[in-house]
Formats: sequence, structure tokens, C-alpha cells
Amino acid sequence: MNQRYPSVLLENAVNEFARLPGIGRKTALRLILHLLRQDDTLVDSFAQSLIALKHEVKYCKVCHNISDAEVCPICLDKSRDSSTICVVENIKEVMAIENTMQFKGQYHVLGGIISPIDGIGPADLEIESLVKRVSHGSINEIILALSTTMEGDTTNFYIYKKLAPYDVKVSMIARGISIGDEIEYADEVTLGRSILNRTLFNESYRM
Amino acid sequence: MNQRYPSVLLENAVNEFARLPGIGRKTALRLILHLLRQDDTLVDSFAQSLIALKHEVKYCKVCHNISDAEVCPICLDKSRDSSTICVVENIKEVMAIENTMQFKGQYHVLGGIISPIDGIGPADLEIESLVKRVSHGSINEIILALSTTMEGDTTNFYIYKKLAPYDVKVSMIARGISIGDEIEYADEVTLGRSILNRTLFNESYRM
Repeated sequence: MNQRYPSVLLENAVNEFARLPGIGRKTALRLILHLLRQDDTLVDSFAQSLIALKHEVKYCKVCHNISDAEVCPICLDKSRDSSTICVVENIKEVMAIENTMQFKGQYHVLGGIISPIDGIGPADLEIESLVKRVSHGSINEIILALSTTMEGDTTNFYIYKKLAPYDVKVSMIARGISIGDEIEYADEVTLGRSILNRTLFNESYRM
Repeated sequence: MNQRYPSVLLENAVNEFARLPGIGRKTALRLILHLLRQDDTLVDSFAQSLIALKHEVKYCKVCHNISDAEVCPICLDKSRDSSTICVVENIKEVMAIENTMQFKGQYHVLGGIISPIDGIGPADLEIESLVKRVSHGSINEIILALSTTMEGDTTNFYIYKKLAPYDVKVSMIARGISIGDEIEYADEVTLGRSILNRTLFNESYRM
């Protein structure tokens, strides 16, 4: 439907909103008309929170998780096991795993998975810095907690091969999560159990 | 799920986004992580478009539609029939009716419908200004094009009674749209036909 908007300002705002994934033009219009009914201060704080996030957010120097400081609270936490590192795609998975309260190690956020179709190769991800962390020698185990998709498998293999020269155990979270599902949508019990029942990389792939 | 966010900035942005209707915290997080992957300029223009809209948008002095000027293009259009006014809830309905290309009159945007449950009474809507437009005497017909819900019916009745003292025909769009459906989601053919086949207010309600 070729919508004609009564205001250029409105059309601009709809265009900006409709760029977001999963937001169509009708939804964008609905959200914007909702914002128009709110106080000025509310809309300003909405817009400012996005600007502040985009300009001021930091990424932890160690694990690349989003952080307000140079090093994130999880990496700074002395009570956590720094010899076990859980490799995840994104911060959503860190949050999901933290919510299971089954994992007391640290994380490494790749920032994505290898996906040739989206033009994402190993160099676009934080894989080199993972190898560097492992090469320092104080890490016993790497737990791969990527989505059980073809891209996840590819990334698992790539990391496994990159870590082969080092004396480190590489494990994967248990495949309690059905193939094709995404980790962030798994329920907490399944996700927590899959961390406890992780299997050695070789056994997982029957090599 | 009691999510713990690794960054206060991130949490603030998620909170702001999750205030929007129909946007939960998981969707908010997904949208924000998408924005984080974009260029700074893109996020800035997104935020600025909202601020600009909120602070600079005007409402047409005549019909209360959103407008960039004091009087909207539809009210200024001399080729349109200024003796027929279509009363709608919101600008979404103006856009939907304009898209049918079946209506050549003008509009009056109420800014909502009477809904006691949401605390919206007649005084919160542009009903007085509609009566004022009618009282100037150059209007032949008022077409009520509100949603066919209980709130819509209530508002129809209220406006009908308010306009009773004046020499003006009050009609309603045909109930081709099933009861309970919202006007903005009707298809263009049905919506266009319902404008052409409008019935007199009395006949619609069998009074």
C-alpha cells in the first residue's frame, strides 16, 4: 500500500522506525502515534537513551561483552572460575546463561557466528582474541555455546581447529536443545542442564 | 524472567523501548542490539527524527490532522468538498480513507474515541471544535467513520446528540466492516465501499 503521510516529519520518523528488523510501516506508525501521545520528556528520554547507548557504550576488553567500564563485572568477579570460558555469539546468550545460574566461569562474546551468506567471516568475529586468551595458558576448558544451526556448527569447528595446538579442553553444551533452535529462546531448565551435561567436542561430532 | 543487563546504558535503552505498546523486553533487546550494529549516524538520525517529530509537528487548526503547517493540505485543497466532513478517530484512519480514493470531502480528527475504561471522555476529544465547525453553517453532511466497537458506538451517539440542534445530515460508513474490527486494518475495497454506501445515522441504529 502506497501510504501518503500528512506530514514529512511523521514520514521521516516512520521511515526510521521501519528500518528496524520485524517492524513494518503500519507497526512503525502505531508506535510513533503512541510516542506522540506521550510527554515531550518521555520521547526525549527515549531518543537520548539510544544516543547515549550508541556513543557511550563500551565493550569489555577481555570478553567483549557490552559493559559500562573497560572490563565487565563478570570478568572482574574474583569468585568466578577464570579457567573456564563459555564462548557465545552475543550478549543475549550471556544474559540467558547467567539467568540459569548454572555457570560460574567467564565468557567470550564472538559478536556473531560465521555466516558466508551474510558476509560474516572469522575475521569479523572475536576469534583471534579468544585464541590469545587461551595462549596465555591459564585456561583449562572452553565451552562452546553457539546456536545448533549450520552456522553454529561451522563456527564450532573453526574455533576447535584454531585451539587444537593448545592444551585446552574444548567442550560443547549438551544438545538438549533441538537442532535448529536458537539458544536465546531456550527455557532456563533446558539451557541450564545443557551446560551441566556438556560433552567433549570429539564425542559430540562422533569423530 | 528477571534479566540482568551487563550495562546500565543498555538497560536504560531496553526499558525505554519496552514502554512501547506490543514491544516486550526481548524484542526491545533485539532491536537495540540491531541498532548497536549500525553506524552512529543511523542511530542519531533515528533518535533525531523522533525528537524533531515530537517538538516540531503541528496539528491542523481546522481538522486536527497531523500537519507540517498551520492548516493541512487536505483542508487547503480547494478541489475538495468542504461541505462534507468525515469524522475519524486518528490520522491512521485519514490515511486509510485517503488510500481508497473514494472520498473527496474533508476530515475531522477526534484524537481518540470515548473510552471510560481508559479515562477518555468527550472533553479529551476534538468534539467541541467539530460542533463549532458545524455551527458555522456551511456543512451539509457529517460522516461518522469510527471503529465498529462499543467505544465507537458510544462516540457516534454522543456526536449525533451534540449535532442534533443543527441542520446537518449525520451519516455513518456502511457496516460492511465486521463488528469488532478496527478501521485501519480493513482492506481498501471494503473501506471504500463502506464510504460510498454510508447510511443515515437513524437507520443504522434502527431508531
